[in-house]
Amino acid sequence: MAEIVKVAVDAMGGDNAPGEIVKGAVDAVNADKRVKVFLTGRESVIKEELKKYNYREEQMEIIHAEEVIETGEPPVMAIRKKKNSSIVKAMYLVRDGECDALVSAGSTGAVLVGGQVIVGRIKGVERPPLAPVIPHMNGVSLLLDCGANVDARPSQLLQFAKMGSVYMESVIGVKNPRVGLVNIGVEEEKGNALTKEAYPLLKNCPEIHFIGNVEARDIPLGGADVLVCEAFVGNVVLKMLEGVSGALIQKIKDGMMTSFRSKMGALLVKPALKRTLKDFSTDEYGGAPLLGLNGLVVKTHGSSRAIEIRNSILQCIAFKEQKINQKIKEQVVLED
Amino acid sequence: MAEIVKVAVDAMGGDNAPGEIVKGAVDAVNADKRVKVFLTGRESVIKEELKKYNYREEQMEIIHAEEVIETGEPPVMAIRKKKNSSIVKAMYLVRDGECDALVSAGSTGAVLVGGQVIVGRIKGVERPPLAPVIPHMNGVSLLLDCGANVDARPSQLLQFAKMGSVYMESVIGVKNPRVGLVNIGVEEEKGNALTKEAYPLLKNCPEIHFIGNVEARDIPLGGADVLVCEAFVGNVVLKMLEGVSGALIQKIKDGMMTSFRSKMGALLVKPALKRTLKDFSTDEYGGAPLLGLNGLVVKTHGSSRAIEIRNSILQCIAFKEQKINQKIKEQVVLED
Repeated sequence: MAEIVKVAVDAMGGDNAPGEIVKGAVDAVNADKRVKVFLTGRESVIKEELKKYNYREEQMEIIHAEEVIETGEPPVMAIRKKKNSSIVKAMYLVRDGECDALVSAGSTGAVLVGGQVIVGRIKGVERPPLAPVIPHMNGVSLLLDCGANVDARPSQLLQFAKMGSVYMESVIGVKNPRVGLVNIGVEEEKGNALTKEAYPLLKNCPEIHFIGNVEARDIPLGGADVLVCEAFVGNVVLKMLEGVSGALIQKIKDGMMTSFRSKMGALLVKPALKRTLKDFSTDEYGGAPLLGLNGLVVKTHGSSRAIEIRNSILQCIAFKEQKINQKIKEQVVLED
Repeated sequence: MAEIVKVAVDAMGGDNAPGEIVKGAVDAVNADKRVKVFLTGRESVIKEELKKYNYREEQMEIIHAEEVIETGEPPVMAIRKKKNSSIVKAMYLVRDGECDALVSAGSTGAVLVGGQVIVGRIKGVERPPLAPVIPHMNGVSLLLDCGANVDARPSQLLQFAKMGSVYMESVIGVKNPRVGLVNIGVEEEKGNALTKEAYPLLKNCPEIHFIGNVEARDIPLGGADVLVCEAFVGNVVLKMLEGVSGALIQKIKDGMMTSFRSKMGALLVKPALKRTLKDFSTDEYGGAPLLGLNGLVVKTHGSSRAIEIRNSILQCIAFKEQKINQKIKEQVVLED
């Protein structure tokens, strides 16, 4: 039988905690016997939530944590001071080897800082990138870095490309993923100092399948499987994707409500549209991994519901079984 | 009577030249008696196109130019070598004061380089930004810089903010436009070195209405009227907007064609949707001005059709009548 994958879940983090988080954890253990979840947070509250569900008790454990780190708190300070918070407790479970992975919908800053400071980087990894899966016309791409540290070095972009390729191939299941450098033109000499220096590093790296520069316009068309950029650009790409989709879908809904005729039409197209737009959502892929750490740290959206928490937990199975960190170590060692 | 506004139009530039360009020029002069168009390009070809239309002949002139700069050509070299090209001839008309403005759908690089090298910057302007109007949920914003020169200095972002405010107020008609700095968080201390240094400059400038940082997610919601950023970021914002809208609309169209029921619905919602999506298009605002030059240079999309050329030409009237360059000069002098 396969080894049990132990996942610490921050039960108190996110807009819908603890209700949706606990529900997601229950759904995950009910979906797969290979997972054991450690819910960190206020025991009494979590127990109350768990009472609502049926699940195999040997797959669920509560680790009491009195404090909660709020989204607005300065992360470095919060991580240092709130040793007894649900995020920090979950981080220690991973650092001490009691869990393989952790999932949190809480403060992004605290997850990024805690991941680096408590869980720690794999030796040789310069900067652990936050790598959300984003939708495109015919599938998904991995976008990295979307973290909090801007102004990456060219060598860091190369590491992002390698770690992203491993993840995309082994966890998401895209064979020989195409790596693209997010840039303002397709020609090699286009861009800023960072992209100009990173281009030859990517081109000359035999471990990845580099296809050159990718313009932002081609990202929603699936221009590359692994999109490499520094975090300021990654943030703009990610938030434009969310913002434009949201605004346009709202516009279309409003447009359909403008006349009797269009309202009738809306009723008829609704089921088909819902299916189509579901393709343009990434909920089923779970949260964004912070790659290159001694363990898997997954950050899910602050507004995550049970489905996203469930899938983020289940994603940890592939991460462990596919030995992602072993592969990342090999890639990083290769370059030394 | 109002003064005549003389606009040089590059008849040979763009994917749909000369047909749509000439048609747009005819539509513009037929729409407004205050405009005179100087079409630059191959005389015989332009004459052939003009034969198709009725228009007041005193409002149209052909300036023969034998050569054409192709989109792929290195712009600096092309501007220098092809003195007899339609773009360069149009540039000289503006430089020599024979025209007030020029409109081109041709090579972006050639327009940007020619604008700076031939038309020339207003004294004190550090870098002329390319400033397209972009749609949002309830109107439009001005995004600058989207030009070819990346890695701007903080003082340049401040100039972008001032010039953009003048343009947005006087040409687009948004009173006291809200200026936002495109950033990865709303707090003052967020971002990279450039945004951190630019923030206090913008905050302490009494000539603009600065509202702070704007996250990319809020751009499609109309988070600011004037969006200030360096050109790499501006390019990513602009192309994500185009790319996501295009992909999503295609997805929705495909979705509506998946079943008999949804096809029926599509017929009913089509007119309402078309109206709604027209709001999300910027054709009626014409092309993107290159601000801060001794004259107005407007770059329209390479794929421009007559409507966009027409509106770009008409936009030059407000630019001249509102004395935009005079206002920009005053703003720039103020800071010295």
